Amino acid sequence: MIQSHTIQIPVNKINADGALSVAQDFLAIEEPLEIRLEFSSENQRITQSISITMRTPGNDFDLALGFLFTEGIINNPEHVNSIKHCDAQNNIVKISLQTGLTIDVARLQRNFYTSSSCGVCGKTSIEALQMNACPTLLKTSDLVKAKTIHLLPEKLREEQSVFDSTGGLHAAGLFDTSGNLIALREDVGRHNAVDKVIGAQFQNQNLPLPDKILLVSGRASFELVQKALMAGIPILAAVGAPSSLAVELAKNFGMTLTGFVRDQRFNIYSHAERIITN
Amino acid sequence: MIQSHTIQIPVNKINADGALSVAQDFLAIEEPLEIRLEFSSENQRITQSISITMRTPGNDFDLALGFLFTEGIINNPEHVNSIKHCDAQNNIVKISLQTGLTIDVARLQRNFYTSSSCGVCGKTSIEALQMNACPTLLKTSDLVKAKTIHLLPEKLREEQSVFDSTGGLHAAGLFDTSGNLIALREDVGRHNAVDKVIGAQFQNQNLPLPDKILLVSGRASFELVQKALMAGIPILAAVGAPSSLAVELAKNFGMTLTGFVRDQRFNIYSHAERIITN
Repeated sequence: MIQSHTIQIPVNKINADGALSVAQDFLAIEEPLEIRLEFSSENQRITQSISITMRTPGNDFDLALGFLFTEGIINNPEHVNSIKHCDAQNNIVKISLQTGLTIDVARLQRNFYTSSSCGVCGKTSIEALQMNACPTLLKTSDLVKAKTIHLLPEKLREEQSVFDSTGGLHAAGLFDTSGNLIALREDVGRHNAVDKVIGAQFQNQNLPLPDKILLVSGRASFELVQKALMAGIPILAAVGAPSSLAVELAKNFGMTLTGFVRDQRFNIYSHAERIITN
Repeated sequence: MIQSHTIQIPVNKINADGALSVAQDFLAIEEPLEIRLEFSSENQRITQSISITMRTPGNDFDLALGFLFTEGIINNPEHVNSIKHCDAQNNIVKISLQTGLTIDVARLQRNFYTSSSCGVCGKTSIEALQMNACPTLLKTSDLVKAKTIHLLPEKLREEQSVFDSTGGLHAAGLFDTSGNLIALREDVGRHNAVDKVIGAQFQNQNLPLPDKILLVSGRASFELVQKALMAGIPILAAVGAPSSLAVELAKNFGMTLTGFVRDQRFNIYSHAERIITN
């Protein structure tokens, strides 16, 4: 089913002189999505609500699968028995896992950012990922030319169908090392745009992605680096700034993290060896 | 305690020619914060972890109190017995509520976006707020001049100490209707910046804020409109775009929502009567 990303509404526009005019404007649609998981636990079938996120409708199955994969809850698309919307509004996705597949229920309730060792901090957040089977990337070098990186934001923007009409959506684009755009997803939530990109690759059994680049239209947070790592993507490029913990996580797990990729410049924060400069 | 918002690290900078140079750069600090609540329930003292959020350290008490207030968990600062960091890393805040004050534990576990009526959608998200005592704003008009709104982003930027050095932080600023900046908070999470602003006002018993304007440096989502509504702020101005559900919520609860407040223009999406145009 194709769902629209935008709605049109009348808006009062005020210019510099304070003059008011009425015009039609497009808004990015934001609606809640509940993800429900049906699985076996101690010989029972259990259906549990895993998450409610505010998202832009469309590619909901990619979003739900991407979320479950990047959070470490499922790791093989063949374990998914069925996936469907189960309400009239298409705001609930139910994923049924294969019978016989056991899920650690307690883990679903534990927070991803805490480890059992000692309280809460950036260090324990990173340790928690190590315990949750987040893979360290293979060492590779000379994977992509700097001039290819420069071109990515323009290519993303050219294909970004909704941003131009609303200005309200984050985008995530997956590129090969020659700079060809392979997949693009948009969402009001930047983590959702990334989950949609990764979820589609997961569904097609394309993971991991050791020769791909992920470009995000905004900033690079801990959470986005984590998601890209789970998908085995060696290079994350952000149009905006990275955070301290995003850089630390990228360094620890062998990822090349670049930021401020715009205006024909960018910064490399970790593992510069994959980028070919002059 | 004063905590730094930034760290300095060496970064590889690539220019348009692909030439590489090394320079010092500032990063916005991102660290997890766990909020723990100690309260009475059925004659027992219970300590429960309420939330873990990735945030920029600093103003943690404002953040924790703002979060508890805007999520409808506490509504009076006098109900707070004590608030303190309770770990060596200052990443856990424990809020102890007055003895005798009963908290609905089940509510802490229910998601804010779902009502008991019918599944999940924008409409039920809004209904859930109505049931959770989110106040409808009083009708007011001619509260602020359009030319005052034009000036807000520049004033925010002038005072925004960290953004200039990192480019990585969202800001939220509280203004009076003459355009004077009253409070400014910055964070890697835009919802945290808003919780910090509101939490400080909550602590000082200044809520509600019927004659104030909240400016956010990014986009306006459902969640940000909800938080401003809880604080009784009649005008939310966003430098970026609003989402569909943000506009719907603002319309329903009587809030003036403006977006794209930049370059001497802005759009009014709801309740234009509070803004004086030419």
